[in-house]
Amino acid sequence: MKAKTPSESHTILSDLVLPGETNPLNNLFGGELLARMDRAASIAARRHSRRIVVTVSVNHVAFKKAVPLGSVVTIEAKVSRAFKSSMEIVIDVWIEDRESGNRTKANDAIYTFVAVDDMGIPVSVPPIKPETDEEKMHYDAALRRRQLSLVLAKKMKPEEATELKALFTS
Amino acid sequence: MKAKTPSESHTILSDLVLPGETNPLNNLFGGELLARMDRAASIAARRHSRRIVVTVSVNHVAFKKAVPLGSVVTIEAKVSRAFKSSMEIVIDVWIEDRESGNRTKANDAIYTFVAVDDMGIPVSVPPIKPETDEEKMHYDAALRRRQLSLVLAKKMKPEEATELKALFTS
Amino acid sequence: MKAKTPSESHTILSDLVLPGETNPLNNLFGGELLARMDRAASIAARRHSRRIVVTVSVNHVAFKKAVPLGSVVTIEAKVSRAFKSSMEIVIDVWIEDRESGNRTKANDAIYTFVAVDDMGIPVSVPPIKPETDEEKMHYDAALRRRQLSLVLAKKMKPEEATELKALFTS
Amino acid sequence: MKAKTPSESHTILSDLVLPGETNPLNNLFGGELLARMDRAASIAARRHSRRIVVTVSVNHVAFKKAVPLGSVVTIEAKVSRAFKSSMEIVIDVWIEDRESGNRTKANDAIYTFVAVDDMGIPVSVPPIKPETDEEKMHYDAALRRRQLSLVLAKKMKPEEATELKALFTS
Amino acid sequence: MKAKTPSESHTILSDLVLPGETNPLNNLFGGELLARMDRAASIAARRHSRRIVVTVSVNHVAFKKAVPLGSVVTIEAKVSRAFKSSMEIVIDVWIEDRESGNRTKANDAIYTFVAVDDMGIPVSVPPIKPETDEEKMHYDAALRRRQLSLVLAKKMKPEEATELKALFTS
Amino acid sequence: MKAKTPSESHTILSDLVLPGETNPLNNLFGGELLARMDRAASIAARRHSRRIVVTVSVNHVAFKKAVPLGSVVTIEAKVSRAFKSSMEIVIDVWIEDRESGNRTKANDAIYTFVAVDDMGIPVSVPPIKPETDEEKMHYDAALRRRQLSLVLAKKMKPEEATELKALFTS
Repeated sequence: MKAKTPSESHTILSDLVLPGETNPLNNLFGGELLARMDRAASIAARRHSRRIVVTVSVNHVAFKKAVPLGSVVTIEAKVSRAFKSSMEIVIDVWIEDRESGNRTKANDAIYTFVAVDDMGIPVSVPPIKPETDEEKMHYDAALRRRQLSLVLAKKMKPEEATELKALFTS
Repeated sequence: MKAKTPSESHTILSDLVLPGETNPLNNLFGGELLARMDRAASIAARRHSRRIVVTVSVNHVAFKKAVPLGSVVTIEAKVSRAFKSSMEIVIDVWIEDRESGNRTKANDAIYTFVAVDDMGIPVSVPPIKPETDEEKMHYDAALRRRQLSLVLAKKMKPEEATELKALFTS
Repeated sequence: MKAKTPSESHTILSDLVLPGETNPLNNLFGGELLARMDRAASIAARRHSRRIVVTVSVNHVAFKKAVPLGSVVTIEAKVSRAFKSSMEIVIDVWIEDRESGNRTKANDAIYTFVAVDDMGIPVSVPPIKPETDEEKMHYDAALRRRQLSLVLAKKMKPEEATELKALFTS
Repeated sequence: MKAKTPSESHTILSDLVLPGETNPLNNLFGGELLARMDRAASIAARRHSRRIVVTVSVNHVAFKKAVPLGSVVTIEAKVSRAFKSSMEIVIDVWIEDRESGNRTKANDAIYTFVAVDDMGIPVSVPPIKPETDEEKMHYDAALRRRQLSLVLAKKMKPEEATELKALFTS
Repeated sequence: MKAKTPSESHTILSDLVLPGETNPLNNLFGGELLARMDRAASIAARRHSRRIVVTVSVNHVAFKKAVPLGSVVTIEAKVSRAFKSSMEIVIDVWIEDRESGNRTKANDAIYTFVAVDDMGIPVSVPPIKPETDEEKMHYDAALRRRQLSLVLAKKMKPEEATELKALFTS
Repeated sequence: MKAKTPSESHTILSDLVLPGETNPLNNLFGGELLARMDRAASIAARRHSRRIVVTVSVNHVAFKKAVPLGSVVTIEAKVSRAFKSSMEIVIDVWIEDRESGNRTKANDAIYTFVAVDDMGIPVSVPPIKPETDEEKMHYDAALRRRQLSLVLAKKMKPEEATELKALFTS
């Protein structure tokens, strides 16, 4: 299968924060943001694989800044690395200042999806060929994160997680 | 006020069509699409004006193609022309074929917003300077549409609608 | 097919404005109102045609007055004119003052629906026979609006739009 | 306070059943119908009292017929009787056959609301003067239902519930 | 069929009150609470019968205390008595004080469900064997409520409602 | 501050999967499940701390089994360990077989919340005293996960992450 670049799966979802989507502190409700990120990430996974995709795991989500009622929130998602049938998606969430137009990061997250056929059987997806420095950094980190996932799920022995081990023993 | 280009307000909202957003024919419910376009258009109007904006009118929406359950739908919105405190927004709606990645237009629409201050009083917005041929075409048509709105609302006499009149008398 | 009166399709949808349906200014969110009008209009179109109906276009919506949180909003819809398989629906939106019971118009709109069979093929609908003066006015204006739609969609030449032309050349 | 007729509070809410409002059997979800009836009933109570109103109890709801996906459902609500600050609302729910236009009753319900001032203190509401035979029947039954409520809540002794007692001892 | 205890169907649904679920007074919207109780009650009915279940009636709901925005609300539901294919469900709704952790009752309700097979035909359910004093009290009251329902629906003559009659004539 | 046990924060949220909460494969939409887990976890964090709590991160969510339309889903959440003002919450998600009543795990997840005062400033929370073997296992693992989070966020040097390091070097 021919490799694809992260930019080929780049997905943008700009939307408002309305009162029905807030928590009692008048910020975007965390669960609603998790759902929006899932929607954006699944589009990126589908654009990369051109297959039906399903969420396998949410690997990390850091809520850095509250997103106030009335904000414009932009979610950007791209595939950072592919492993056989699974894809790691890197997601950034931005808030835009109304008066200056400047944007600041509110949140970042990593989700994993798997591509399946009509019967739900996993199918291969194209590999990723990173282009920018940031994409290369995400590509390398993705292997460490995958080893970590496998170790935590007891599907890999810690001593086989060569990338991870290096981090702690070097 | 310094003119801005339509691309400075360009807004992208890619999202899925889930079962809770469909009609009984298993297509995206028309009302839900109208709501999503309103959200995207209001972000474009806000990016142009950097002000609070409110919907003034929906001038035209043509539903060309049904959007089936499970589709990826992309809404793109840009300001096409500004008149004192009001902005015309041109919206295109695209569906993406999962297997080929090709996209086809499902819908287009024109909404009008007005910029207001904290008291709800209309305030001036920057003029638009169109760049591409398509942007110039929308820019010219916007004046005819505005005259038409004013004539239909009986706020302008038909004989003063010079642009429109030319269309029917030339 | 036997003609029907607009009152035979008259549809009333009175509902509240709850916090989950507002915008950050604490008024009914424009997109939510567009969706409610679509629901009411589709019932009117179905009552006239007794067929499956789908939204074809939103021809005009004017947001005249904001609808505050806690309001009682009444949407009234009736078929104003039928053309083969398509129906123009005129919609009025009213807000009711709690203390006096008086109602004022917040919004009016024109939507077009088409009647289809189970395969989605357009089917004929009964003609409209207007009764009141207001219904007659809407009936006449519907032809001008239809010509305008066709001209804007480049499906009719401006010089053939006789009703419209008269408006600008008389 | 001058008495008002039930028809002065008559409220109509016609709406569709979309997929997002169904249960797994593809009928309108019971909880959604309970919510729509609450909205319609609260409008009727407000029209009668011209006050802020809050739901006090749901006295009886009988689900007679399932309401299938795609139906047009009409909820009609009227105040049947008023007691100081509380109002009993009778609600009927109708489904409309698409082809014949005939309507059949799917559901009926009785809700009780109380009118309050801005501090939440109950305030008096106008008495009801029933006009039609059906309104008179509801008016008489309302007293028995109120006694029953009070007996069940242990706020009235069974022997004082003269209307109810007559039902069982005559 | 072997009898089951109420505790075998005990269902707990603890959830938040977010802004999108409130009324204009910033309390949980009554219709939303009715829907949540319906969801909890249908799980209890399903746990008792291990069948598909449908709501037949809401027999009584008393709104005792408003549930403010931001509350933790716990709904508890259990089957109180079974009659052939129908089940009466007793529901309690609690609010939890954030600082002390104490809980107070906001609401109680009685719903009736029926168990059906895949064709929608009612099927038998196990009888209930109450254990605690409170369960026994609900079990006894359920028969009176059932007679009352049948009398009000004119499916039982008042003089045959022996349990109810005793209440008023003793 | 006096230590509390995990069972003091135990939260149960049993609910249905209705059509409006599914994805196009007719299973519970991943984003909706993420939102429900966030609601349950925030209640557990609040019960432990008796404070306002906000989501800080989602550390891991593994989607093991799809949750089909019509399922009864039970989410259980408990605080597993507390660090000054932050709390780690362990969440399990169960599906219940309708006929046998057996339940199987569909999903597990770890979320982190922080307790704040009215100004949003983090405040101390009671420590956790685990009781059961499973609670002790989660308690120990929580420290490794915290070190991992700090290392990944570059707030701790890998060589200081003693617990984690042991995992890879022993």
